[in-house]
Amino acid sequence: MALLLALDFGGTKNSAALFEVGQAQNLVQRRVLRRASVANPNAAYDVATMLDLARELLQGQRPERVGVSFGGPVQYSQGMVVRSHHVTGWEQFPLCERLRNEFGAPVVMDNDANAAALGEARYGAGAARDAGGKSVQSLLYLTVSTGVGGGWVLDGEVYRGANELAGEIGHMAIDPAGPECVCGRRGCVEALASGTAIARAARERLANEPTAGQRLRALIGNEMDKITAERVNQAALEGDALARNVMDAAAQALGWGIGNAIVLMNPALVILGGGVSRAGERYLETVRTAARANVMPELRDTFEILPAALGDDAPLWGAAALALNREFSP
Amino acid sequence: MALLLALDFGGTKNSAALFEVGQAQNLVQRRVLRRASVANPNAAYDVATMLDLARELLQGQRPERVGVSFGGPVQYSQGMVVRSHHVTGWEQFPLCERLRNEFGAPVVMDNDANAAALGEARYGAGAARDAGGKSVQSLLYLTVSTGVGGGWVLDGEVYRGANELAGEIGHMAIDPAGPECVCGRRGCVEALASGTAIARAARERLANEPTAGQRLRALIGNEMDKITAERVNQAALEGDALARNVMDAAAQALGWGIGNAIVLMNPALVILGGGVSRAGERYLETVRTAARANVMPELRDTFEILPAALGDDAPLWGAAALALNREFSP
Repeated sequence: MALLLALDFGGTKNSAALFEVGQAQNLVQRRVLRRASVANPNAAYDVATMLDLARELLQGQRPERVGVSFGGPVQYSQGMVVRSHHVTGWEQFPLCERLRNEFGAPVVMDNDANAAALGEARYGAGAARDAGGKSVQSLLYLTVSTGVGGGWVLDGEVYRGANELAGEIGHMAIDPAGPECVCGRRGCVEALASGTAIARAARERLANEPTAGQRLRALIGNEMDKITAERVNQAALEGDALARNVMDAAAQALGWGIGNAIVLMNPALVILGGGVSRAGERYLETVRTAARANVMPELRDTFEILPAALGDDAPLWGAAALALNREFSP
Repeated sequence: MALLLALDFGGTKNSAALFEVGQAQNLVQRRVLRRASVANPNAAYDVATMLDLARELLQGQRPERVGVSFGGPVQYSQGMVVRSHHVTGWEQFPLCERLRNEFGAPVVMDNDANAAALGEARYGAGAARDAGGKSVQSLLYLTVSTGVGGGWVLDGEVYRGANELAGEIGHMAIDPAGPECVCGRRGCVEALASGTAIARAARERLANEPTAGQRLRALIGNEMDKITAERVNQAALEGDALARNVMDAAAQALGWGIGNAIVLMNPALVILGGGVSRAGERYLETVRTAARANVMPELRDTFEILPAALGDDAPLWGAAALALNREFSP
């Protein structure tokens, strides 16, 4: 039985998984044969550490194919990492070539949002969803954490655009009067809905409303620099009105952006991944309500918004799906 | 030589053209063999009138294929017209079946924005644009007239989405504080950038600024209900500051929406068709500048915004391109 090696270079951990490839170029039993990960911020993005993980899984065997998800911008068709947003040393790094030399097998790589989109389409929330038992043919995957990233699956495959830059829903501008974004513009979805935006909005409101947000203030011991999206959401879930308003506003902005994407592309499914997306049922419902309110009437019942079924493993499964595709990057 | 019949049911005229199909399923010499049109608002959308046109062109010959562009919503895969925005009698009309019975040939139909997108990609502004001499593989076509419509070509073909509703850039919301849109929401591109929006904005400003817009006032003989986008643009071109501001604002809103679409889909080309898009060089440059200002830095030099090369004939050429494709609707 041929082996497929999937690698996920993530922001906080490296993960690797080994799959068996069947004769129909599918994943046998759709389960991981063996897997391992290193959750060390210093080791993440480190090639040597990843190679150790992979060798541990392979136990001397050679993989027939290697699929890679990278947590940062890549040039898919070149097999190159453009850079890491977390550490230096990755600028224009030919990761596919490096891994092909190591394993003697074809290697394909995409960024984590694209990989997760494909993973969810084939093996997660989009798997076997249509009447014919096929995977969903069109979906938008969003990862909402520190920033907001996105990836498209159209006609069943990752859609990358003319320069392999498609999917950046985080930088769709939805409010010309909105807060400044890291990209230099105003009112981007990321500037309104990311974890960073949630923390900033809460900090500003606590500063402006001296008596509000008592639960949130207690959670952070009144130390403003301890505000995180996670703590804002915790306070919201515990009934803090200010924190709840902040979470609602972030969910509404996300839903607004999703609505615009639906108007433009009419996907069957929208999948939410990333830490912020796990904020709870109220958050998810607020996103859904805002998205439905921001599409034309005839689109209102055409889509579902679902949490990622594979969680943090979506990029790993997507890397496997990429490796199963016929075409390989150099 | 086999004949291909292309029909365009437009808002103000019906057009028909006859092409010769070569052995490689191309259009021989890429030129119209014979063509005709009826520019009668009462005749437009009338099937009998269109059949007369077609018979006149065919001169007793049978077409091998028929392609249709319809100026309103259609169900592509069903070969059905959903409705006309202009006249009644088209609700759920099986136009492809009707024409197939008439001509004894397979018939394919799409809405005019999708047809124009494909026409421009294959035979217009997107033809033979890339290094390999291929047509452009990804483009967004916008038609800016009474409303704002759009169509996608991705991977060289029309992209229609899960419910054949993709491309509605006119109803992407870009300003929550913007004017109301016909769709019931606020700040849609159409509510800010269409001909209707231009006329309304000019009317409001003339009412609020009693001494401004003298050139425009003269053009309409001070009759507010004579304001049209065309007259606003004429006044702008003749130096009327109020009219120029209105045109600039409309162009900026359009560019803003285009920027968002580029961020999401990374197309190689954006093509502007429709009456408003012919407002002049200042208008076009304002659209371009706004679009470039509303994308992330790495996208700024990845796209061009060009006027439609085929003008009002784009849907007709697109209908021909659809008919050349292998798959036919019922």
